[in-house]
Amino acid sequence: MELKATIIGYVRKEEGIAPYIEIDRKYWGATLNLEKFSHIIILWWITERDNQEDRSNIQGTPPVENAELSGVFATRSPRRPTPVGHTICSIVEIDQERCRIIVDHMDAFDNTPVIDIKPYLPSSDRVSHAKTPKWFDDNVYRYSSGD
Amino acid sequence: MELKATIIGYVRKEEGIAPYIEIDRKYWGATLNLEKFSHIIILWWITERDNQEDRSNIQGTPPVENAELSGVFATRSPRRPTPVGHTICSIVEIDQERCRIIVDHMDAFDNTPVIDIKPYLPSSDRVSHAKTPKWFDDNVYRYSSGD
Repeated sequence: MELKATIIGYVRKEEGIAPYIEIDRKYWGATLNLEKFSHIIILWWITERDNQEDRSNIQGTPPVENAELSGVFATRSPRRPTPVGHTICSIVEIDQERCRIIVDHMDAFDNTPVIDIKPYLPSSDRVSHAKTPKWFDDNVYRYSSGD
Repeated sequence: MELKATIIGYVRKEEGIAPYIEIDRKYWGATLNLEKFSHIIILWWITERDNQEDRSNIQGTPPVENAELSGVFATRSPRRPTPVGHTICSIVEIDQERCRIIVDHMDAFDNTPVIDIKPYLPSSDRVSHAKTPKWFDDNVYRYSSGD
């Protein structure tokens, strides 16, 4: 069975402006009502890690102080069997004319393929009290407090 | 460019026991330290929707009261260009001997391929105040309050 992702757009990063997702015009209709959400989940393809060596990577140490060697499913390493990236962003603006979703930040390179966008639903996506290992304690909280 | 996902395990659902992800033994090392997290993000392949018609679907109306026609990127419809599912689960137990991650719930069918598991990091994944359209207001909150 082959599981093939569809590219629905690309991450664009240009000097001096906010990053945005440029959606393929044929998929633009799939953004109807997206402006009613404040946040989205962007799934993207880590193309620079889509090679046999990186996809065979099983363990690594997160690049934070005192981290322990961990399995890649216990890290957000880009070197993993399916090189798919997962980023939650705040929607800054939706540019209907140019088929762009302008976001507040994006941790993928310019021209990275985007394979799906999902609305952030607090009912299923927000976890109030999630436990993580202590080496992630010092992470900076982007959209919530550290409680 | 072909973007091919790797199957790292399968969703298993058996009568009378909690659902679990059975990880391919060759990827089991990738779960090292996963027990230090309380929640995970499971990315899975919606195989029953992996056909040309469903993958061409652009808009639909969420199956909740008073919902408006929306683009699929503004819904969690399984009928979308890349049929990838995204579920946040609580880890119930990790069965080292049988290579199983037992979870509290799973909204995918038995034998669904899993393509990635990521640890839930509140720093990047939790959004305290997310706006959604009013038709999602009555959703039941799984891991947080509705505030």
